[in-house]
Amino acid sequence: MKHTGLGGKSIILRLEMDTNRIKFGQVASAVSEAGGDMVAIDVIQSTGYTTVRDITITVTDSAHISKVTDTVKSLDGVRLVNISDRTFLMHLGGKIETNPKVPINNRDDLSRVYTPDVARVCTAIQEDPKKAHTLTIKRNTVAVISDGSAVLGLGNIGPYAAMPVMEGKSMLFKQFAGVDSFPICLDTQDTEEIIASIKAIAPAFGGINLEDIASPRCFEIEARLREELDIPVFHDDQHGTAVVLHAALINALKVVDKPLDQVKVVICGIGAAGVACSKILLAAGVGELIGVDRAGALTRDKSYDQAMWQWYAEHTNPKRLDGPLKDVIQGADVFIGLSAGGVLSREDVQSMAERPVVFAMANPVPEIQPEEVEDIAAVIATGRSDYPNQINNVLCFPGIFRAALDCRASTINEEMKLAAAEAIASAVPAEELNASYIIPSVFNQNVVKAIRERVVKAAVQSGVARRIPRE
Amino acid sequence: MKHTGLGGKSIILRLEMDTNRIKFGQVASAVSEAGGDMVAIDVIQSTGYTTVRDITITVTDSAHISKVTDTVKSLDGVRLVNISDRTFLMHLGGKIETNPKVPINNRDDLSRVYTPDVARVCTAIQEDPKKAHTLTIKRNTVAVISDGSAVLGLGNIGPYAAMPVMEGKSMLFKQFAGVDSFPICLDTQDTEEIIASIKAIAPAFGGINLEDIASPRCFEIEARLREELDIPVFHDDQHGTAVVLHAALINALKVVDKPLDQVKVVICGIGAAGVACSKILLAAGVGELIGVDRAGALTRDKSYDQAMWQWYAEHTNPKRLDGPLKDVIQGADVFIGLSAGGVLSREDVQSMAERPVVFAMANPVPEIQPEEVEDIAAVIATGRSDYPNQINNVLCFPGIFRAALDCRASTINEEMKLAAAEAIASAVPAEELNASYIIPSVFNQNVVKAIRERVVKAAVQSGVARRIPRE
Repeated sequence: MKHTGLGGKSIILRLEMDTNRIKFGQVASAVSEAGGDMVAIDVIQSTGYTTVRDITITVTDSAHISKVTDTVKSLDGVRLVNISDRTFLMHLGGKIETNPKVPINNRDDLSRVYTPDVARVCTAIQEDPKKAHTLTIKRNTVAVISDGSAVLGLGNIGPYAAMPVMEGKSMLFKQFAGVDSFPICLDTQDTEEIIASIKAIAPAFGGINLEDIASPRCFEIEARLREELDIPVFHDDQHGTAVVLHAALINALKVVDKPLDQVKVVICGIGAAGVACSKILLAAGVGELIGVDRAGALTRDKSYDQAMWQWYAEHTNPKRLDGPLKDVIQGADVFIGLSAGGVLSREDVQSMAERPVVFAMANPVPEIQPEEVEDIAAVIATGRSDYPNQINNVLCFPGIFRAALDCRASTINEEMKLAAAEAIASAVPAEELNASYIIPSVFNQNVVKAIRERVVKAAVQSGVARRIPRE
Repeated sequence: MKHTGLGGKSIILRLEMDTNRIKFGQVASAVSEAGGDMVAIDVIQSTGYTTVRDITITVTDSAHISKVTDTVKSLDGVRLVNISDRTFLMHLGGKIETNPKVPINNRDDLSRVYTPDVARVCTAIQEDPKKAHTLTIKRNTVAVISDGSAVLGLGNIGPYAAMPVMEGKSMLFKQFAGVDSFPICLDTQDTEEIIASIKAIAPAFGGINLEDIASPRCFEIEARLREELDIPVFHDDQHGTAVVLHAALINALKVVDKPLDQVKVVICGIGAAGVACSKILLAAGVGELIGVDRAGALTRDKSYDQAMWQWYAEHTNPKRLDGPLKDVIQGADVFIGLSAGGVLSREDVQSMAERPVVFAMANPVPEIQPEEVEDIAAVIATGRSDYPNQINNVLCFPGIFRAALDCRASTINEEMKLAAAEAIASAVPAEELNASYIIPSVFNQNVVKAIRERVVKAAVQSGVARRIPRE
């Protein structure tokens, strides 16, 4: 079953029709020809020459919705006023709210949470700024910040259109890990302005989750903020992906019984996520790692304009392999795709080592459809929820920030990311581990707990924890 | 009864004592001499040379707490580790939280509020950015923003220490008017950086409430943001105060039976609030308005370095009065103090016109103690909750933003502020109006409703509403 989230849903189209130019029957038959099953009609308004009707249509998926709505829009004399469906209705007025933690019922309450009594709390923080971590929302609040430049598969859609994703992320923080979070979409895509704005608003927050910021700008922004702020700054597209990928790889290698320090891994797509995945694998001690992008394998025998690629070439590909993906993939144990749909062929997988591991994480279309290689690949994972083994960032960010806030970490370092990956991998019990179950469900309630425990420990041991949490 | 919010409370002091240098009996007697009534002792830790104890002390007010704690701190061999009381306990972890409006219980929910289905909502906003007002939190969310430079009576305490005030304000927005709100304290006091940061984070918000920003910087910041953003920007210290003051004056003048266009008003303290109060009174058609600051009356016969004072001198004081407060107050019908404690004398009030109105709003010490002139002033108001007629911004900001969000106002203009003042004044029923009751309680639930109704109407009539709300 594909697109489980959309199966058998209905949408409501509000249409304004010019009755001189089109009859409703023509609209109905056009919808029907586009495969839409019309199940209800409500006349909203009817004047001499125009009529406004809500038509409810059963559809199967997003592509289907687009087909139906495009058909309707193309009709002469019809204006598509609005599309509503359960998804849109869930977004009305936004998806998060802010609430007082205690009610203000009377003058006594008011004078404690606001003037005059709040002044004593302000003074206490002024005298000892560390107290901001206990006496303000900083203790449990993370900012989810994007500039709207690389949102999902949609690209540079800007700050307004990016908000629903960031609100969704804020919901997940609270729902999965009890972390308060607020979505901020920046109305600038200038690196320096982004850095300055985030630094300016940082005092309220105990952590910064950067999201959907285009590469290579994202590297500079994250690096600078990590340097200049004393709270964790975590670009989730990079590190969240890296942590979950690493978790999946730990378990995949158990399934194929190969040790990490002896495998050859080819990563295709050296953008923000590709770089971060490579770094975590290097930190974990991967055997041989080769990065491939459009121009072929990155190798220290060439030089690159982009600073990150230059760094990458110097730190990977020890055998200085050169050439396109189809060459360097030969004999590889693991393929990791963070690139684009269809770049990997069945022949490529056939040329890999015995029991190959294929992580085809491009969204929405993976580097290779699992069906094409399910008979020859030992383990397959994708970024999609409609195949087994979904590599999903949601497994990482709530728990890793829960841990960072609880131990008041000044940063999220490599040790903490590795610990998070180990924790996620450990959430799949050894006796249940198999090729179709290498990664826990995002609804597995043990994941956040496991991450918190191991990441706090890693933070304390690596010296970035500023508090030892209880239990 | 003074300091109603603090009466008969207890605080807990955690003390670390060097037992070689001080005995607990000495601490106990020092606390007692400072007027503290010790009601409980808990030994937390005790080693050879140090002992840590929590002592619970009953106190009466903030000054009393300071006296006790200062005494304890001054003792040789004692370290005051921590002070806890009900106010501090209410601030633990901050006072607001963010919550999902719908739960995410399963894969189906997840795919609607987050990927893949959220992409359709993003695309809808990208195609029509106005939809951000319906499909994101922008519809109901206001940012409460400060740079921490002029907080309460505490002054320039910085962004961390300012957070409890802004969090309190966010609570009030939700509690009194159902407005979601998020506190942002900026780690910069540079005018251009403040403007740039607020513009950058604006997409998430339907309005900006500026708070506790020092004068004259606040004028430039507000003016520029009003010009450059298409959502309401409202410096509450200016306009909230002005609206509530105007409401109080409307009712005070009813009590003394004098029409606004025939009264002489002296405003003392021409900072941010003084300017805004003056502007709303000018807009409302006040008879004669004279501003006084440390250098005496502002008059167009002089010239001023500060642009705002120059503007002020040119638009007020039609009779070009000159000299100190004690001169220009003679014959005035209304005194409005937004300056400092004690600047007004009984003699000054005696020199005013018949049935003088005295608004002594300096905090915490008013320009004149009400007791000193209660026999000669017809109406007295202050900024304090322990006297009748408290001029409190809490009466304005929740309702005026409720209205602005509901009609999707592009700004909050003079018409809307005047309407809000009329609404607040109207919440005191004519038959109950008297010298001790010119302003409704902040807990009067009719206030927000009345403001919303009148302010929406004013916004629609003045052409700044982008939506006509239902009911």
